[in-house]
Amino acid sequence: MTRQLTPAAPVSLAAFDKMFESIKNWGKWGEDDELGTLNYITPAKIAAAAALVRKGRSVSMAIPINKQAGPDNPNPAVHLMSLMHDIPISKSGLSFGMCYLAMASHGDCHTHVDALNHVAYKGKLYNGKPAELLTSRGSDWGSIAAYYHGIVGRGVLLDAARHRKVDWLEPGEAVTRAELEAIEKEQGVRLGEGDILVFRTGHHKRRLALGPWSNDYPPAGQGKAGLHVDTIPWMHERKIAAFLPDGDGETVPSNVEDMPYPIHALQLTSMGMLVSDSLQLEELHQACEEEKRWEFMVVGLPLRLPGATGCPWNPIALF
Amino acid sequence: MTRQLTPAAPVSLAAFDKMFESIKNWGKWGEDDELGTLNYITPAKIAAAAALVRKGRSVSMAIPINKQAGPDNPNPAVHLMSLMHDIPISKSGLSFGMCYLAMASHGDCHTHVDALNHVAYKGKLYNGKPAELLTSRGSDWGSIAAYYHGIVGRGVLLDAARHRKVDWLEPGEAVTRAELEAIEKEQGVRLGEGDILVFRTGHHKRRLALGPWSNDYPPAGQGKAGLHVDTIPWMHERKIAAFLPDGDGETVPSNVEDMPYPIHALQLTSMGMLVSDSLQLEELHQACEEEKRWEFMVVGLPLRLPGATGCPWNPIALF
Amino acid sequence: MTRQLTPAAPVSLAAFDKMFESIKNWGKWGEDDELGTLNYITPAKIAAAAALVRKGRSVSMAIPINKQAGPDNPNPAVHLMSLMHDIPISKSGLSFGMCYLAMASHGDCHTHVDALNHVAYKGKLYNGKPAELLTSRGSDWGSIAAYYHGIVGRGVLLDAARHRKVDWLEPGEAVTRAELEAIEKEQGVRLGEGDILVFRTGHHKRRLALGPWSNDYPPAGQGKAGLHVDTIPWMHERKIAAFLPDGDGETVPSNVEDMPYPIHALQLTSMGMLVSDSLQLEELHQACEEEKRWEFMVVGLPLRLPGATGCPWNPIALF
Amino acid sequence: MTRQLTPAAPVSLAAFDKMFESIKNWGKWGEDDELGTLNYITPAKIAAAAALVRKGRSVSMAIPINKQAGPDNPNPAVHLMSLMHDIPISKSGLSFGMCYLAMASHGDCHTHVDALNHVAYKGKLYNGKPAELLTSRGSDWGSIAAYYHGIVGRGVLLDAARHRKVDWLEPGEAVTRAELEAIEKEQGVRLGEGDILVFRTGHHKRRLALGPWSNDYPPAGQGKAGLHVDTIPWMHERKIAAFLPDGDGETVPSNVEDMPYPIHALQLTSMGMLVSDSLQLEELHQACEEEKRWEFMVVGLPLRLPGATGCPWNPIALF
Repeated sequence: MTRQLTPAAPVSLAAFDKMFESIKNWGKWGEDDELGTLNYITPAKIAAAAALVRKGRSVSMAIPINKQAGPDNPNPAVHLMSLMHDIPISKSGLSFGMCYLAMASHGDCHTHVDALNHVAYKGKLYNGKPAELLTSRGSDWGSIAAYYHGIVGRGVLLDAARHRKVDWLEPGEAVTRAELEAIEKEQGVRLGEGDILVFRTGHHKRRLALGPWSNDYPPAGQGKAGLHVDTIPWMHERKIAAFLPDGDGETVPSNVEDMPYPIHALQLTSMGMLVSDSLQLEELHQACEEEKRWEFMVVGLPLRLPGATGCPWNPIALF
Repeated sequence: MTRQLTPAAPVSLAAFDKMFESIKNWGKWGEDDELGTLNYITPAKIAAAAALVRKGRSVSMAIPINKQAGPDNPNPAVHLMSLMHDIPISKSGLSFGMCYLAMASHGDCHTHVDALNHVAYKGKLYNGKPAELLTSRGSDWGSIAAYYHGIVGRGVLLDAARHRKVDWLEPGEAVTRAELEAIEKEQGVRLGEGDILVFRTGHHKRRLALGPWSNDYPPAGQGKAGLHVDTIPWMHERKIAAFLPDGDGETVPSNVEDMPYPIHALQLTSMGMLVSDSLQLEELHQACEEEKRWEFMVVGLPLRLPGATGCPWNPIALF
Repeated sequence: MTRQLTPAAPVSLAAFDKMFESIKNWGKWGEDDELGTLNYITPAKIAAAAALVRKGRSVSMAIPINKQAGPDNPNPAVHLMSLMHDIPISKSGLSFGMCYLAMASHGDCHTHVDALNHVAYKGKLYNGKPAELLTSRGSDWGSIAAYYHGIVGRGVLLDAARHRKVDWLEPGEAVTRAELEAIEKEQGVRLGEGDILVFRTGHHKRRLALGPWSNDYPPAGQGKAGLHVDTIPWMHERKIAAFLPDGDGETVPSNVEDMPYPIHALQLTSMGMLVSDSLQLEELHQACEEEKRWEFMVVGLPLRLPGATGCPWNPIALF
Repeated sequence: MTRQLTPAAPVSLAAFDKMFESIKNWGKWGEDDELGTLNYITPAKIAAAAALVRKGRSVSMAIPINKQAGPDNPNPAVHLMSLMHDIPISKSGLSFGMCYLAMASHGDCHTHVDALNHVAYKGKLYNGKPAELLTSRGSDWGSIAAYYHGIVGRGVLLDAARHRKVDWLEPGEAVTRAELEAIEKEQGVRLGEGDILVFRTGHHKRRLALGPWSNDYPPAGQGKAGLHVDTIPWMHERKIAAFLPDGDGETVPSNVEDMPYPIHALQLTSMGMLVSDSLQLEELHQACEEEKRWEFMVVGLPLRLPGATGCPWNPIALF
């Protein structure tokens, strides 16, 4: 593991703030809008995405929900049986097994989707809504329930690990706009308005091979691979609707001075983009190789959970 | 509410057991199979289902997850904030809102999908597996994670309330095989191999109009509307892959003597059918009327939760 | 149940605010004090309380933690097995049964103790601390962990139901200062500095006899019996250290105009008093009758839970 | 940390089984008894224990409930706010902060008490009850609720770390019967019928100094210090009522061949002894030094939680 990291040049906080302003979609779809860049996915685009399903192959993009504590899983999901087959409910011999699930909406060890009430910058959520909208009872506006009809569209996998001919990117490595465009060319695809960017660094493959590590900033953790912030204006120009990475898109340490998690702030708060974290793209990239195409229909179905800042989910790619 | 109930003739437990044997799919797809009737959905059928998406309209079939206790919700979901925007995580002003969800997998007040380890009859799960496979740690076999690539196929809504020209069926009313066939004719559809039966009694509409009631057997509860058991051999003949009702398909009190929940036993244990409970079909039946068609693509995506007997989900219909 | 209620004369909000100021202990034990009136219980008083244990009889004052939803239990405790004896952990045949508990700290259906961060009035907690001290991560100051060495002292039961010669007080009935003093005389006891007031209305006996009811304000609920606010200055004069009622001391509807739960605000926020709610005093009042005394040693042991606003507990009386 | 371990001579499983039989209290207090060795604590002994409270000093024996995952805390307690002061409930300015606790009953990172349904050996619980009594709904018999009047008695601290003149015993070190008797002599105390043995190895002090470690068997963990099994017949002879150790009394690896956790099986299953785990005895041993006595009144108050196999608690010593 002595491979050279490729940290990108640092971006100042002032430059970050300027970028935040330049890509802002606040008010673009009305002052009460809570769908953000999902507005780019028109019915026609949904129908076009469905037309990509030619073979009838479905591929999950979710990690098995992890119930074991570890350096990247400090609050593991709790999953318990509430009833077992030891207690029949009728003389005729019928019995039910039932279970109970308790878990954080967000976490590095289960695939989840973020709501627009999840991230605030300088006291504002997407669309300029005050952060105080999120009370100790949740928030009606911008909760995950706003997405309850699901996200359906054309997905394109950009595979940075494949492009670099490595098993995975190392923690701290960042992918720039230039590299994303190079991957597009190499794979023969192009992302456009309303498309869903699926982005692979090989994070999950690394975890399976080397075991879990803390994704936190050094020295507490080892960090993680992700995007350079210069990819965000590119997403804005291309009118990308949603972003589904393994890892969470963030490079840790980040490329912005004094600013952790700049990607989330730019995507969720400024652009109002649907973001999912911690995908498992190992089956998908294998399927893409086999099917020899990097575009597919994506369906992701958030739980209809009023007030929530996010939830576990299991998005799929359909070929 | 003095409308005449239409209870069907009672079925003896002996007749039930005979039916249970006659529709059994145990061993049909191998002794270790844990997909059951989902095996009817071939890749070609998935592709054909996608071809039904012509307009690009997505309709959720989920109830908002209900956090309020009530007569039909004795164990309400617990949803709490774990972090709010009152605690910025950087000097630059970034903050995260995060939440926590704790809930039963099964319950009448959230839409959920059942796993094949959920129901045992006389000590056996689907495919003849011993009920003891489900331990206090869950079961590897037949858990909801077996469905992790999702259920995708052609859905057909059979709308019993529409057929009877009522807002909803009353608790205790049962829909027979003959009525299902009459609805097919009326709506101009026919269910065949690998199709997903979406079945509407208007349960959720009744709840919205009259408030919650207990679905338990009288006198503790008022019961609910559902299927007569004679519909199950019909589903077996038609090779239906999955069943998505409002309510849970069960008529309470049931039509079988000394046997509560016969529909679940026949579907899950004998046939190995994917069953979802407590759907919200009010938006869907409205969409069907507007689109003037009762067939659509269905996508349902269970959480990838190892060991689980079921989970909340949010299936959609795509037109 | 046609007995005449005895509602007390209403108190204006202005009079309430004046009372709030007049009994304020803010700063009395230092600006960082988080023990409040427990400061009245000196070591000498603990030793004197222990001397009341002459017979060696222990009586619990807790309700069984209620896992069933009901009109007074909208968020029932969730208690599940996490491991059962079906899975031995050694060939020699050793097995463990283990369980999991998830519950609200506060609730009408389990006996619990309140922390000083639980109640704020006009943005201030006890001792003038800002309500914002309690963040989404809890609060270091004034949490239940401040009481972790336990509450130990002389308890005195004042039994209002016994005094009125009824099984229980009806919802809405309030006990005044004058009545408390009459009960003292009748029972031959007197509360003084550092004493623990155990107060019985028969709330739990009524629940056992008539079934649960909602304690909320009409019309949503039926209310509950408790104290008139004029008892609070009396407690202040007497230097009572702690208050342990069945019910929660509040009369619902309250005696103060436009002010629900005035007792909690006066006790917790103004005086810094230790308050426990929802005690079960049926065994205790029986024991008092049998022992022919209304004073005893009290021991209550809060969980050592940092940040918490309260917790379930099981205080006892020792004779 | 190169100090020599003092592993005791191994005991065969056959010898263990013989010991199990020789100390068995099954049937001793009736076939339905669920108090076990607590029967040794008569009212007279409670009164005598109270007489030990001469100074009025209370000392907690609980660890702060640990919400952080770690090698000895794989299932950390979840503690969340359910309501904060950001939402006043009246115009007059009253607000409540409320929280929610979800945690395992048993665990190495919170002080807890075990119920008699917690441990089975060869399919039997204490008093010969079948292990199947504990269903997926808990068990009425032998649950923690059986102890709901609390445990009150004379406690004696035997401080093995003090005796060995070390800060703490190292993982794997075992204290024998001979050493317990030597400690008694050194400290000038003697345990007798109905007494509560508080036993210190310095486990918690080691954790504070060196950080957490896994208590599991090597190689997964480092083990822990505790008792040799030959101490159990001594406890039986002395008629000890309860056992409160830091750690959990077990030496890991154990002294019995092919038998993990032999102490729990002997104490809980064979003798029916009240056992608490993971105490914090650092404040207590300091207090004993200051007070120059090793005996005190102990009060421990389990939650009144029907069906439970144990619960967190906060026992105290009173001087």
